[in-house]
Amino acid sequence: MGYEMRSTLTARKMTANATLGLAHRPDEFRAFFAYHDALMLKEGGLSKGEREMIVVATSAANSCHYCVVAHGALVRVYEKKPLLADQVAINYRKADISPRQRAMLDFAMKVALLSAEIEESDFAALHEHGFTDEDAWDITAIASFFGMSNRIANATGMRPNDEFYLMGRVPKPPRG
Amino acid sequence: MGYEMRSTLTARKMTANATLGLAHRPDEFRAFFAYHDALMLKEGGLSKGEREMIVVATSAANSCHYCVVAHGALVRVYEKKPLLADQVAINYRKADISPRQRAMLDFAMKVALLSAEIEESDFAALHEHGFTDEDAWDITAIASFFGMSNRIANATGMRPNDEFYLMGRVPKPPRG
Amino acid sequence: MGYEMRSTLTARKMTANATLGLAHRPDEFRAFFAYHDALMLKEGGLSKGEREMIVVATSAANSCHYCVVAHGALVRVYEKKPLLADQVAINYRKADISPRQRAMLDFAMKVALLSAEIEESDFAALHEHGFTDEDAWDITAIASFFGMSNRIANATGMRPNDEFYLMGRVPKPPRG
Amino acid sequence: MGYEMRSTLTARKMTANATLGLAHRPDEFRAFFAYHDALMLKEGGLSKGEREMIVVATSAANSCHYCVVAHGALVRVYEKKPLLADQVAINYRKADISPRQRAMLDFAMKVALLSAEIEESDFAALHEHGFTDEDAWDITAIASFFGMSNRIANATGMRPNDEFYLMGRVPKPPRG
Amino acid sequence: MGYEMRSTLTARKMTANATLGLAHRPDEFRAFFAYHDALMLKEGGLSKGEREMIVVATSAANSCHYCVVAHGALVRVYEKKPLLADQVAINYRKADISPRQRAMLDFAMKVALLSAEIEESDFAALHEHGFTDEDAWDITAIASFFGMSNRIANATGMRPNDEFYLMGRVPKPPRG
Amino acid sequence: MGYEMRSTLTARKMTANATLGLAHRPDEFRAFFAYHDALMLKEGGLSKGEREMIVVATSAANSCHYCVVAHGALVRVYEKKPLLADQVAINYRKADISPRQRAMLDFAMKVALLSAEIEESDFAALHEHGFTDEDAWDITAIASFFGMSNRIANATGMRPNDEFYLMGRVPKPPRG
Repeated sequence: MGYEMRSTLTARKMTANATLGLAHRPDEFRAFFAYHDALMLKEGGLSKGEREMIVVATSAANSCHYCVVAHGALVRVYEKKPLLADQVAINYRKADISPRQRAMLDFAMKVALLSAEIEESDFAALHEHGFTDEDAWDITAIASFFGMSNRIANATGMRPNDEFYLMGRVPKPPRG
Repeated sequence: MGYEMRSTLTARKMTANATLGLAHRPDEFRAFFAYHDALMLKEGGLSKGEREMIVVATSAANSCHYCVVAHGALVRVYEKKPLLADQVAINYRKADISPRQRAMLDFAMKVALLSAEIEESDFAALHEHGFTDEDAWDITAIASFFGMSNRIANATGMRPNDEFYLMGRVPKPPRG
Repeated sequence: MGYEMRSTLTARKMTANATLGLAHRPDEFRAFFAYHDALMLKEGGLSKGEREMIVVATSAANSCHYCVVAHGALVRVYEKKPLLADQVAINYRKADISPRQRAMLDFAMKVALLSAEIEESDFAALHEHGFTDEDAWDITAIASFFGMSNRIANATGMRPNDEFYLMGRVPKPPRG
Repeated sequence: MGYEMRSTLTARKMTANATLGLAHRPDEFRAFFAYHDALMLKEGGLSKGEREMIVVATSAANSCHYCVVAHGALVRVYEKKPLLADQVAINYRKADISPRQRAMLDFAMKVALLSAEIEESDFAALHEHGFTDEDAWDITAIASFFGMSNRIANATGMRPNDEFYLMGRVPKPPRG
Repeated sequence: MGYEMRSTLTARKMTANATLGLAHRPDEFRAFFAYHDALMLKEGGLSKGEREMIVVATSAANSCHYCVVAHGALVRVYEKKPLLADQVAINYRKADISPRQRAMLDFAMKVALLSAEIEESDFAALHEHGFTDEDAWDITAIASFFGMSNRIANATGMRPNDEFYLMGRVPKPPRG
Repeated sequence: MGYEMRSTLTARKMTANATLGLAHRPDEFRAFFAYHDALMLKEGGLSKGEREMIVVATSAANSCHYCVVAHGALVRVYEKKPLLADQVAINYRKADISPRQRAMLDFAMKVALLSAEIEESDFAALHEHGFTDEDAWDITAIASFFGMSNRIANATGMRPNDEFYLMGRVPKPPRG
């Protein structure tokens, strides 16, 4: 949950459960969200929606209930494609994404699942699609940060807010 | 690298390579070390050496060159056991650790490798050895944070300082 | 897609894409749906919603885009729980299900992923929750049949109808 | 067991145990064998022996006692090569098969084990050996159907008839 | 191939291909067969047939064409059970073996596949079935020795003699 | 432990624990060390240090406490590179080795982990770096022999002598 999204949630009188989960550890809370915002809210070669796609694909690989649902909502909101998040979560190879985004997710999945085997050829595959070294760092850092987030959420049983499941699926979400 | 260790390194005119690796991203750098210090330097139910054992065991599972070597040095320094870090890295089940530490590392390894399958019985196994819920959070957070650190270090090819390989192995390490 | 569901779809002027995908092989088509209906539409110890939960959990383990989305819709429709399908797909261990349903899905997942290791103790775990031998056969056959379906859909790139993504998520789904 | 084989068995006064195993579920029984016959007995680009090789290779990957033994017999009978079935079961890469058959089994094994990762390049590898799209469907459907069969046989402990172990190994099998 | 079996083969004018494969390295050849004979031909708590079952089960797990076929022949010859070797190779959990032999193979498979996780409880499971510490050493050493043999045979493409496929399957094997 | 190393140890009044572990089985002991010496002490295309690198990389993959520590010492002693053994053990892809040594270890790791999938292309990759067929046999045999050694050491809980941890790390190792 970045600043922007937290504003959106605030407007809807929601607090993301992740916020509550970490709240009893203020130092960790501050560091977690500072890191999160540094990766997810800055300008750069990856769009906000693309960053969230990385989160959804890798979080699904880690079977993280919280992150797939919450960040799936963000994929839908940022990309304005109501089907995309489910596609990326189930099998990103079959999702309606560009070849560039496919290369991005291939790299992100290798960071999530086989980081010790990343080599020059993996970076070369990114460069072929126009990604810079800074973009490669972003993909790496996002997949790594949410690998941390997935593990914390899995172990602590963090649950997504009910609102996230439907967010971005219909033109005007029903107000409760 | 926490504050204390960084002081030690400073005294030796060393800068941990991890510090240099992250330096070109100041916001991420600050958040990374703030999070690191919140987890590794605070008081709590786990000793500093035990926290570093978690780092070494899980980083070895992730084949992270940087973290196994750098944090292996810290295990040796904090625990004053020159053989322990190698034992924990290669196969923690055979290491000279207490049953309590074995339970701690079993839990940490499940966080690192199979976090989606963590259930109440895993926490119960910790409680049997006197770990509190706050300790369980610490183990979770440390294994998760260094899971992130391992992936970043692996993908970016971060290398440990040469000094770390020998640190804590001999009574008085040779000065360069 | 069983008869009942096909009626629903007909009422909405939809034809499930799975129907189209198999249509060029009439003998396989007839046998596939005869088998499907024999497993999914009959009376028995498992409710229709529970059968569909088996499909969703095992299809997610097989990363089957078609089956997770299409049968996720059926879980929502039959169980009238709009969040349940996503929970079961991402990590059934964290889903809002009964202990009996958890035992059912544990068995189904072992059929899907490790069938050679199924032993008496696995059946005993089912019996403890009141499942009969006929129920165990049903769970086995459903997980096995959709293991087939998943592989065909994955290899042929079968895609779910767009309508399935939203079905059962809101009280009155929008009509196209 | 297709019609032809069932005739052979009938002539020998044998009933394949698979027939007995499914007999208490007449609807499933009929659908299973209708599907089986649609895949295994029709004319097409794959010989009967080649279809059975697919069954043996993928069933061995699934450790299915029934299918490896029963369909191993069929490989020997159809191909008239008494050593081939064991070779395909143990490690198809070392079997005495043509490069075309190797490509067929590579594809079949990917369907059995990693279907979510099948992509255009896998089909291209088949086409290089002269397989058509219909042949690719056949390979897919056979590997998928027997993936179902393997799981049912494994979970229910289905055992092959003793006669299958020796069938096709010697010029004239001993009559009991 | 131990001394006794080599005598049998000599009587049939056969030389096991494994003998030929190693022959160009006389020192390795001598050490290999000295080790082999020390493990497979000595007296002890395991029968010759049981030792060969260990070879077949673990060699199948390693997909070793040579060892499964050649030592499958020995299982049939020693145990006088023509179906047993195939059962053990495909899925030892479904084989017609005693609970004691099942425990023996469970331990052997853990040596072959997960030796780093062997702990006291694994030895205790053996002791419950009357195995001594010397028997446990035998099981360990046989599974380990053939793990070596499997890897050499796999990498060098060693092929079993044609005669092994049929040996022990019929009361009087046909003479060529 | 080969002859040469045993001399070194003798000079230091050490007996490698592996020697003690096997001593109660004299026939196995003699065969083990005869095989060991045939592989590790002979002249050939691989240097002694390279052979020990193979041992360390594959033993780390098998999580063998004894072999990683004892043969890590030998890598340091033979190669006179105090950091190399740890690098090879943790992730040989990141170690300071030549492209030729990388190809050697890639092949050795495939022997250790996936020997059934070794094909001509794997040998071709070795030949590209100037390795002969005899060298390929050496790599295969060493990775296979220590795969055996790893399993025996893991199951029997063999522990390395304390001296091995430090050997080769400092110019003049401290005498006890």
